Amino acid sequence: MDKKVTPYEVVGKVDYDRLIKEFGTSLISPELLKKIKVKDPLIGRGHFYGHRDLEKILSSKKFAIVSGRGPSEKMTLGHLAIFNFVKKMQDAYGCYVFIPFSDDEKFMIKQNLSFEEAQKYAYENAVDIASLGLNPKKTEFLFDTTTLNQDLYNLAIKCAKKMTFSMIKDSMGFSESTNIGSIFYPAMQAAHILYPTVKYKLPVLVLIAIDQDVMVRLARDVATKLGIEKPAALLSKFIPGLNGEDKMSSSNPQSALYMNDSAKEVETKIRNAFSGGRDTLEEHRRLGGNPDIDPIFQYLKLFLVQDDKEIEDIEIKFRTGKLSSGELKQIGIEKINTFLKGHNEMKRKVKDMIKKFIKS
Amino acid sequence: MDKKVTPYEVVGKVDYDRLIKEFGTSLISPELLKKIKVKDPLIGRGHFYGHRDLEKILSSKKFAIVSGRGPSEKMTLGHLAIFNFVKKMQDAYGCYVFIPFSDDEKFMIKQNLSFEEAQKYAYENAVDIASLGLNPKKTEFLFDTTTLNQDLYNLAIKCAKKMTFSMIKDSMGFSESTNIGSIFYPAMQAAHILYPTVKYKLPVLVLIAIDQDVMVRLARDVATKLGIEKPAALLSKFIPGLNGEDKMSSSNPQSALYMNDSAKEVETKIRNAFSGGRDTLEEHRRLGGNPDIDPIFQYLKLFLVQDDKEIEDIEIKFRTGKLSSGELKQIGIEKINTFLKGHNEMKRKVKDMIKKFIKS
Repeated sequence: MDKKVTPYEVVGKVDYDRLIKEFGTSLISPELLKKIKVKDPLIGRGHFYGHRDLEKILSSKKFAIVSGRGPSEKMTLGHLAIFNFVKKMQDAYGCYVFIPFSDDEKFMIKQNLSFEEAQKYAYENAVDIASLGLNPKKTEFLFDTTTLNQDLYNLAIKCAKKMTFSMIKDSMGFSESTNIGSIFYPAMQAAHILYPTVKYKLPVLVLIAIDQDVMVRLARDVATKLGIEKPAALLSKFIPGLNGEDKMSSSNPQSALYMNDSAKEVETKIRNAFSGGRDTLEEHRRLGGNPDIDPIFQYLKLFLVQDDKEIEDIEIKFRTGKLSSGELKQIGIEKINTFLKGHNEMKRKVKDMIKKFIKS
Repeated sequence: MDKKVTPYEVVGKVDYDRLIKEFGTSLISPELLKKIKVKDPLIGRGHFYGHRDLEKILSSKKFAIVSGRGPSEKMTLGHLAIFNFVKKMQDAYGCYVFIPFSDDEKFMIKQNLSFEEAQKYAYENAVDIASLGLNPKKTEFLFDTTTLNQDLYNLAIKCAKKMTFSMIKDSMGFSESTNIGSIFYPAMQAAHILYPTVKYKLPVLVLIAIDQDVMVRLARDVATKLGIEKPAALLSKFIPGLNGEDKMSSSNPQSALYMNDSAKEVETKIRNAFSGGRDTLEEHRRLGGNPDIDPIFQYLKLFLVQDDKEIEDIEIKFRTGKLSSGELKQIGIEKINTFLKGHNEMKRKVKDMIKKFIKS
């Protein structure tokens, strides 16, 4: 199968190093990593691994983070982990956070998604994110189909004037049979990214997965043409799917752990998940497992186990066969269910919190 | 030269009858003409000559007119005459009138037009239109870059989802090097057209020149796909240019009479204008002139002389050589300057009127 990475399609085994080069971005060096004030597995353990102008933005007095959400029916644990990292960045840097919900884009790109569904998903995703404890005084949620403001639309058309169809076609995976709303959307997303700079004079750091980097490239190109500061970016790998695929797919229940999965569902899904362990226990004890391809280990490593000693211990035991696949999965089940329980309690507690994040 | 008619380009001699067939519209029959309650040269003397579903809409209890304006630095006499006809339709049918000003489109399609200029032109054009006496209780001005509302944007993205690039490319004269804002705009224009139907449940009659009919076709196609009533249309020919070309070009001072031309400028322009008269007065007296190709005669016929007897008299005299080209031009100069004087007085008198037409 051909390798292909566009914002709408990830085909084949992902070669993260190749993408860094192909997209013209940089790897986060160990020196740069030390300068990041946030202690979080997502940055410390290599999930956020690429960047554009990160050093420059971290040395700015003030900056804003833009981290968008293409609404999905069910948010995954991976989605939420990213926004939890955004919250830690806000705490550490005191920065403003803008979260655009592209319900318009989802509606236009997905043939069978109704307008009302897209709006509903955006709102529900936002409720999950709102419960993470972001500072409402410094956080703004933008919903394209409910809170679109004139400034944002005007910025989008200014961006659109600078972007031709041929400029975006290949990198977005578009063709002439793409609808003209989806074709326009990269201008709206560029506007999302540049909005804090244009409206509040804040330089922007975009937190985004590497497959969406084209949006950053386009926004940077447009920024240059409009004579405004180019946005910086912190680029992540994908959260692996339960089925062992490189990218957790929120539309595939065999691949994704959802925020509203029950404890029972979590248990069943993890028991049935792909494993980096051996075919038999005997073999596993003898040869050891491979945590690098084990999705449950990756979830532990990326967002469930904060303590470095603890995750190292799990990794060594699994790699040397002391920890079986079943035992590893059991750790995963417990930690995920504890996390989900805590999250759902918080969600109930702050259920009107979302209002504080909607400014217009 | 090839013949070509798109919303952005009119090349060659226009064959109006061919366009009617090519675009799948109908000629206004003498029977249908009789049913139109408005007495105005623009309809009575064949300027509005084509239609879609006109009979149906005129038999509706209520309907809305949509007649947009792509803002230009200077509005021409021809532009204003159209809105004056809209006003007469409103008086006769009591209908709501929606006037979208596509400053976004003009900004995006014109390489060298700044955003602020496009906004300024829209506002200035609107001031001219506002002085015509439209009923403010039944008229709404929509400015894409200043009064865009969420309903309109949402309708635009619903339209956009139903329109692919290949559907619009040829009829709009677009290519892959067209910017993605201009590519999106047909969805916004479809939204302008369908807005009264979606928001106020009013069937729509679009008043538009034949070169813009593609916008009506696209809006009708989208309406069908969205399950709403298709808009009807009343289609006009072009106002001829002073230089004898088929279409007055508002960007060419040799072609256009502007609303803010001074009496002196009007006189000079008309004296220098193309004429349907003969090369010498002697020849003209002997062979007669051709009013059909004479722009000044056309202006008299289309909007300066209401009285049928009077225009017939002028036509016969010019055709038979009794009225010289100079004399015809003198009539034009006087009538145009009288009209402009009256218009400018009214503009001063009702200068804040525009506020009443902006609802959001």
